[in-house]
Amino acid sequence: MIAEILSVGTELLLGEIVNTDAQFLASELSKLGINVYHQTVVGDNPKRLKEAILLALLRSDLLITSGGLGPTSDDITKEVVCEAMGAKLVMDTRSLTRIKAYFKQMNREMAKINEKQAILPKDGIILDNNCGTAPGGIVEKDGKIAIFLPGPPRELTQMFTESVRPYLIKRTESILYSKTLRIAGIGESRVEELLSDLMQTSENPTVAPYAKTDEVTLRLTARCKDDADGEALIAPVEAKIRAILGDAVYGVNEDTIFSCVLSMLKKRQMTVSFAESCTGGLLATKLTDLPGASAVLRESYVTYCDAAKTKILGVDPALLEDKGAVSYAVCAAMAEGLYKISGSDLCISITGVAGPDKDDLGNPVGLVYLGICDGKNTNVQELHFAGSRERIRNRAAINAYMMIRNYLSENEKKC
Amino acid sequence: MIAEILSVGTELLLGEIVNTDAQFLASELSKLGINVYHQTVVGDNPKRLKEAILLALLRSDLLITSGGLGPTSDDITKEVVCEAMGAKLVMDTRSLTRIKAYFKQMNREMAKINEKQAILPKDGIILDNNCGTAPGGIVEKDGKIAIFLPGPPRELTQMFTESVRPYLIKRTESILYSKTLRIAGIGESRVEELLSDLMQTSENPTVAPYAKTDEVTLRLTARCKDDADGEALIAPVEAKIRAILGDAVYGVNEDTIFSCVLSMLKKRQMTVSFAESCTGGLLATKLTDLPGASAVLRESYVTYCDAAKTKILGVDPALLEDKGAVSYAVCAAMAEGLYKISGSDLCISITGVAGPDKDDLGNPVGLVYLGICDGKNTNVQELHFAGSRERIRNRAAINAYMMIRNYLSENEKKC
Repeated sequence: MIAEILSVGTELLLGEIVNTDAQFLASELSKLGINVYHQTVVGDNPKRLKEAILLALLRSDLLITSGGLGPTSDDITKEVVCEAMGAKLVMDTRSLTRIKAYFKQMNREMAKINEKQAILPKDGIILDNNCGTAPGGIVEKDGKIAIFLPGPPRELTQMFTESVRPYLIKRTESILYSKTLRIAGIGESRVEELLSDLMQTSENPTVAPYAKTDEVTLRLTARCKDDADGEALIAPVEAKIRAILGDAVYGVNEDTIFSCVLSMLKKRQMTVSFAESCTGGLLATKLTDLPGASAVLRESYVTYCDAAKTKILGVDPALLEDKGAVSYAVCAAMAEGLYKISGSDLCISITGVAGPDKDDLGNPVGLVYLGICDGKNTNVQELHFAGSRERIRNRAAINAYMMIRNYLSENEKKC
Repeated sequence: MIAEILSVGTELLLGEIVNTDAQFLASELSKLGINVYHQTVVGDNPKRLKEAILLALLRSDLLITSGGLGPTSDDITKEVVCEAMGAKLVMDTRSLTRIKAYFKQMNREMAKINEKQAILPKDGIILDNNCGTAPGGIVEKDGKIAIFLPGPPRELTQMFTESVRPYLIKRTESILYSKTLRIAGIGESRVEELLSDLMQTSENPTVAPYAKTDEVTLRLTARCKDDADGEALIAPVEAKIRAILGDAVYGVNEDTIFSCVLSMLKKRQMTVSFAESCTGGLLATKLTDLPGASAVLRESYVTYCDAAKTKILGVDPALLEDKGAVSYAVCAAMAEGLYKISGSDLCISITGVAGPDKDDLGNPVGLVYLGICDGKNTNVQELHFAGSRERIRNRAAINAYMMIRNYLSENEKKC
């Protein structure tokens, strides 16, 4: 099946917004094994919209439009699509009731003008909008399919996932179902070495490393009938990979190293504190970004200047003078000092040069020390990052959480 | 002039990347007063690429392509564009030398295959690539203009700004030049009230409020010959606005409330510290995101649990028990406690409910108290935000910096 994506909206033509709808639809269609050969953007102009729709129906089997389903007279996508497909539009009382209910829920009266959104193809499939007013629709004719969806990304995404994807799965022979395994504490080349047999022999699902900044990930992709079939095909291969890589697999799909560390700490009922220099609060922010952080974080410190490292963490001024703030020894002293004052189970320190300039002692931009202290042992690692201040701070944060994760994972084994 | 944007790349059709090139080009063309009626995406397929190019040249005066200028045989945009425009391609020795120099600078040898990138239209304008290998080009024929640009956004953006924009400015009668004024400490309706005469009478530049989350901004847009002309037209109107709004205008264009507060603090040689509960490090992070933060931030604290508020900031446990952590009184006590321990000139406290759930005392999600203490006075404001945890934390951060900004601005007046 060949598909075309047609986005309708003057704000796209003016470059006011990025066309994330087209990217979402293209990605989803690709996973369904449906080829997209053209993506087009036109404005709310009847002539050009009609030309674009007719051209798409000529060269593609499936047309998906986004946008132009609003209540005003400018919004004409549905009308033009249905005209091109020879589908008659009638008032759909069920949709009208739903739209009125939506307004009521928002404590607003439905304007008369919104009735237009309930005028839908008589012989088509109506797609309910569960987070907005405009329903979508599917019309079929002579082997061609046209689907019109609302433009707001939240509405389009939900409607596609709930209604369009299941509809299309029934019409495709096979889909692609993917699962991403996230890996920490082991390099990409070592992963490929350990899994080379599996990566070469496994055909369905395929197993391939997937490029992702600062992380090693594996993508398992199965050609299958549906999601359940895909899961069933992936399960035994995933089990094999987990048997080989052990707890280096720290998460799947949308998991992050931050959410993973939070749940590991919660599970072990452990607390953590940070003594941050170059990241200046970012390590604490990454954890408190997540609901439930209060179970593991009670207090945290930004010790940005040398004097604060001494005053708050008790770092010996002679050590700061001798080694400099960005050093192995000061990083260790920060973690140990933090352990004394915070009483947290795990104390993390970080000191480095985020840039854009070298520090006063000539340490290069990107040099970062990470320390971890559990009251018995202190470990420090030296890292070197390239890039902008933002990138260095972000990579430092990811690596700090990787360090915590590896500590927790190692420590469990010893118990 | 009517323009069409054609993006070439299989990764766009597969939905692997978002088409930010098209958005950038559309926005830039719009500012040049050039109408874009169509944006199209096709893959590296010779037949469909050629059809798309011929169709674009038929219905538009200006075609701008992005992508498909790489060294492999798949990369055919330049060839197809030049064929359609009847432009002959020849080796451009100057470009070849530049590409070789680029590789040398990266400590790499140029592969033979990259010579292809130096084959360029004989009678066209060659657009140098100052951050990559592929040059772009402009070919003109029978009143039509075709411009081919590289796909990587950094290369495309730079090439457009350096070469294409000046080329197009010469060919357009007028461009739109905009400047955004950022406003703090005064509401949108009050701004409109104060400026209503100016907004109604000023025709060039036009003056209009510009919707931006959590901020009041004004956009001044001049129709002009070029940038310098635009600046000259805007200058007197901007001066009038600044005379009316005073220091409520805190910045222009890309300034943020965070960078503005940093430079105000620097100018006054003042230091700041934060005692953060619900933002959990975000206030400190926003400042340390910026180079030069060390001049104003020495230390900062995350006091996430009640016990930490008492231990670190000396907040009376009876007060916490009586009023709860999310309260006017505790917020004030946090700021005052922070002033005692940090010795910073300005001490900011924040406590609130970021969500997703109400706190233990039943305080609603989005309730946030912001405190500021300068050793003499303490002020606390109560705010209510809606939305996700992320949005509440971000809005709280912006408002905290607005509060600092207003304090600094007020304080200067009193001096």
